[in-house]
Amino acid sequence: MLYTASFSKLIDIFSKMPGVGSKSAVRMAYHILSLSAEETDEIINAIKDAKQKIHYCSVCQNITETDPCEICSNDKRDSSILCVMEKPKDVIALEKTREYFGMYHVLHGSISPMDGIGPEDLKIKELLSRIAEGDFKEVIMANSPSIEGEATAMYISKLIKPFGVKVSRIAYGVPVGGDLEYADQVTLAKAIEGRREI
Amino acid sequence: MLYTASFSKLIDIFSKMPGVGSKSAVRMAYHILSLSAEETDEIINAIKDAKQKIHYCSVCQNITETDPCEICSNDKRDSSILCVMEKPKDVIALEKTREYFGMYHVLHGSISPMDGIGPEDLKIKELLSRIAEGDFKEVIMANSPSIEGEATAMYISKLIKPFGVKVSRIAYGVPVGGDLEYADQVTLAKAIEGRREI
Repeated sequence: MLYTASFSKLIDIFSKMPGVGSKSAVRMAYHILSLSAEETDEIINAIKDAKQKIHYCSVCQNITETDPCEICSNDKRDSSILCVMEKPKDVIALEKTREYFGMYHVLHGSISPMDGIGPEDLKIKELLSRIAEGDFKEVIMANSPSIEGEATAMYISKLIKPFGVKVSRIAYGVPVGGDLEYADQVTLAKAIEGRREI
Repeated sequence: MLYTASFSKLIDIFSKMPGVGSKSAVRMAYHILSLSAEETDEIINAIKDAKQKIHYCSVCQNITETDPCEICSNDKRDSSILCVMEKPKDVIALEKTREYFGMYHVLHGSISPMDGIGPEDLKIKELLSRIAEGDFKEVIMANSPSIEGEATAMYISKLIKPFGVKVSRIAYGVPVGGDLEYADQVTLAKAIEGRREI
């Protein structure tokens, strides 16, 4: 055995992080060993803090520390337009364009029968009650341009139509089969601008 | 502000890890949020455990959970030959070649006046008392093939010579200016095999 038990465990922990290969995991484990007690506590507290303080906004389902979140409680935003997104990262990506000032709703995934994810696993129920109770003029379906994202957008748009709200889909400015969070800001802004009714 | 305070802190913590860029740090922070309470505890405990259990071997100064370490307490190893290395990672790299069966001594760095690291910051005192008390036939200086590593090897070899022990330097099979831990196993084994007396 080349590494001691607790060191192997530490490497193993880091290997499980997204985008971390075995060499990086070893470097990160050595990094932990080189830290002072204070620096180690800082890491542990940051993890604990994030887990304790961050939860879903009761309105838009995005991650937040306050409830409602900063966007939902910001009265300068346009509350007549609602953008439906797959995940919190997508909200960040769209916010960075500085071209959208409406509200958000985060579904936390896409319908994907292959992965056992059905409509009941997403925040669709919450979306429909917001639309029923709210006064939205338009709902933009900004699901990812993947097969699952497209299917989810179509599924949800059919549920929204009876409420008499205009439903649109972001334009295919974003590359097909790609991931929304990696789209550049100009492309993403163009996709919002060129949205079409469905 | 795009991220909440505790989420930004978490991203910041991961950004400080070696080899982790800003996009990776964000992905890792989201990964933490997606974990269950048990999985989070597993990470925290792994970090705490590693910090508590891992210390330096009182003999070779390598990192270990037992004292002496597994290599120092293994009586099947050749206790007449001592390999001096810069860091624990280098020991792992040489162990992987399965070509060396002697003992180790880890210096924990190189003499580097530019970075304010002098001989007293390395485990040189411990090395000299091992050589004085032990019965080594040969000491292999396996410092990295960098300017600092070479200078450290020369400095230490001059201190060892009076003890009448043969001192050798690993052959320049390892690429000059490189880092020992990234050398491939064949090259590293050849470097040990082609060592020359200094």
